[in-house]
Amino acid sequence: MKEEFSVTPWDIKGDIDYDKLIKKFGVEPLTPSLLKRIEKTVGESHFMLRRGIFFAHRDMEWILDEYGKVKGPQQEKFFLYTGRAPSGPVHIGHLVPWVFTKWLQDKFNAELWFQFPDEEKVLMKQDITFEDTAKYLKENMLDVIALGFNPKKTHFLIDTKHANLMYKEACKVAKKITFSMVKASFGLNEQSNIGSIFYTAMQAVPAFLPSILSKRETPCLIPHAIDQDPHFRLTRDILPKLGHYKPASIQCSFLPPLQGRGKMSSSEGTAIYTTDSPEDVAKKINKYAFSGGKDTLEEHRKKGGNPDIDISFQYLRYLFEPDDKKLEKIYKDYKSGKLLSGDLKKMTIEKINAFLKDHQEKRKHAEQFLNAFILETND
Amino acid sequence: MKEEFSVTPWDIKGDIDYDKLIKKFGVEPLTPSLLKRIEKTVGESHFMLRRGIFFAHRDMEWILDEYGKVKGPQQEKFFLYTGRAPSGPVHIGHLVPWVFTKWLQDKFNAELWFQFPDEEKVLMKQDITFEDTAKYLKENMLDVIALGFNPKKTHFLIDTKHANLMYKEACKVAKKITFSMVKASFGLNEQSNIGSIFYTAMQAVPAFLPSILSKRETPCLIPHAIDQDPHFRLTRDILPKLGHYKPASIQCSFLPPLQGRGKMSSSEGTAIYTTDSPEDVAKKINKYAFSGGKDTLEEHRKKGGNPDIDISFQYLRYLFEPDDKKLEKIYKDYKSGKLLSGDLKKMTIEKINAFLKDHQEKRKHAEQFLNAFILETND
Repeated sequence: MKEEFSVTPWDIKGDIDYDKLIKKFGVEPLTPSLLKRIEKTVGESHFMLRRGIFFAHRDMEWILDEYGKVKGPQQEKFFLYTGRAPSGPVHIGHLVPWVFTKWLQDKFNAELWFQFPDEEKVLMKQDITFEDTAKYLKENMLDVIALGFNPKKTHFLIDTKHANLMYKEACKVAKKITFSMVKASFGLNEQSNIGSIFYTAMQAVPAFLPSILSKRETPCLIPHAIDQDPHFRLTRDILPKLGHYKPASIQCSFLPPLQGRGKMSSSEGTAIYTTDSPEDVAKKINKYAFSGGKDTLEEHRKKGGNPDIDISFQYLRYLFEPDDKKLEKIYKDYKSGKLLSGDLKKMTIEKINAFLKDHQEKRKHAEQFLNAFILETND
Repeated sequence: MKEEFSVTPWDIKGDIDYDKLIKKFGVEPLTPSLLKRIEKTVGESHFMLRRGIFFAHRDMEWILDEYGKVKGPQQEKFFLYTGRAPSGPVHIGHLVPWVFTKWLQDKFNAELWFQFPDEEKVLMKQDITFEDTAKYLKENMLDVIALGFNPKKTHFLIDTKHANLMYKEACKVAKKITFSMVKASFGLNEQSNIGSIFYTAMQAVPAFLPSILSKRETPCLIPHAIDQDPHFRLTRDILPKLGHYKPASIQCSFLPPLQGRGKMSSSEGTAIYTTDSPEDVAKKINKYAFSGGKDTLEEHRKKGGNPDIDISFQYLRYLFEPDDKKLEKIYKDYKSGKLLSGDLKKMTIEKINAFLKDHQEKRKHAEQFLNAFILETND
């Protein structure tokens, strides 16, 4: 029996039951017909959709309706919004929603507003300072740029740097949110600091700031990991009261940590970072990646392994083997016992290292594009 | 017997007992020896000090100590900070701390940071919007400029406009303040909006932002009306934890409204505005100013009036008759019955109108100096 679990934007506990989470958060499952509609709209699907890595949404049908209303090469009827609270190095778990967001940007030719709430972790974690977040802000931006987002259509919004655009809008949101509302949504209490209480108002802002700046109401789609949903649930409640659309959203599950359950997290020292060397990766996978294999070679060959709980297989499924046929073959071979745990690990190490080699190369050249991505403050 | 009273930054109830307030808020009374020291330091006194209109302080001795450490014509060892939350037109009650602040600036050759928290009233009052505060922001700035502050040494800080300088610093303050702390200080509760809960952190910022921008820790003196003390009490608790000085402060009582008790307030329609015509002023004083005179002319001549509760006399005392000897003569003549209520009102109307004529003339030309006063955002 699965133990009790809890998911908030700052803390994940226990074994996550995503079906229960859908009901608890009130999001909609991504149905086969909706997946088909997305595929029909842009001419292809994405492996994260087909594999249920993105598994839930709010108002995705509406986004496709709006998108369908405009025709032509400059077609853009909604913008994307996602983000990253800088407080440590980027690990491969962070890449899941971003890789999918890049696909959405490419396929829908959409503007992307990428928020870097550099105050969030300062407010939420006792030992994190603005010096820490300033350091990681830049490092994290380089990772995002390295993923290949379109510099002409991607706008980095840094909370403290762009507060002259954001704070006023956040106050409008904040006026509509009471303490008892955030208490329930985020597990805050009377001993919580007043910055952490206010913060969700800042996270709401990128969902409508582009409409304010362009003076044209534009729908917003937020691809994000499911733990951020409490913020956007609140945002959806408030924005219509301010004359804006409710943002749509699409949620992914968490890339598991090496040890095997929950969410990959820097703070637990079980992560593979984008800057890891091939040796780091090999060592981490070989030493720590939880295996779904049997205890002995004989038993494994006879009874087969369990890819569903095997972390190496999960990393291939989430990120590093986009080819469904190849992944299926690995799944079957591992399950049948034909593929051994050591071979699966070796294969995963190679795939991750090939990905990271390319990523690190692009990351090296990313700094020159920083200014193109950061929103000009005199906009 | 005086009824119960309460004073918070957003609400004044009942008959204020300033002696009780000194104890309740924990401020220090301005003693004769401290007043003498101020006079000795700058070579003159100010009528608002002599008359007890400014009546309390925190750490004023320390400010004078710091000031005494530096010699020479460029002497400046502390800066001043005061403010105005725009939400309506400026009335003569607002002028009390500002007139004194100008005197402090002149006498101590001090920099002044003048905060316009244009979000405060939006967050605190249901029916006030940013459209309202934007309109009054400019109007209010013209009044401040018209009072003759030194444009080279005065810096207007507008919360939403300068949030790129302020929000990050406010977060540092906010991290040290819990909900239960602001609950007690400001009478907030679980139904309060999260912007109002956060707000006090923004009001703390000008007390140390100049030190951050100049990279030199500089003491701060805040002249303000006593109702703002809960903010600065919190500010004083927090700032040492961030490596800054506790700001010193000096508090004034409230100019009473025409009807006679509490605090002049636009929201009650009992105020004299800086833009009032001579006829407006005459009508308001004649019709509404609570009189300390007797019911009949005979009785007044015989028993005399009570200047202590007479609103016209109070306006002279607070603002419009800086000459102590003249004020004393009026006091005595009114008390003896020699001066009639009608004559006192007439005299007060003339004094207010002379002041406002000059103020309105300066206000007319103030707009050209706006940009010199507003802090450059790329500082």
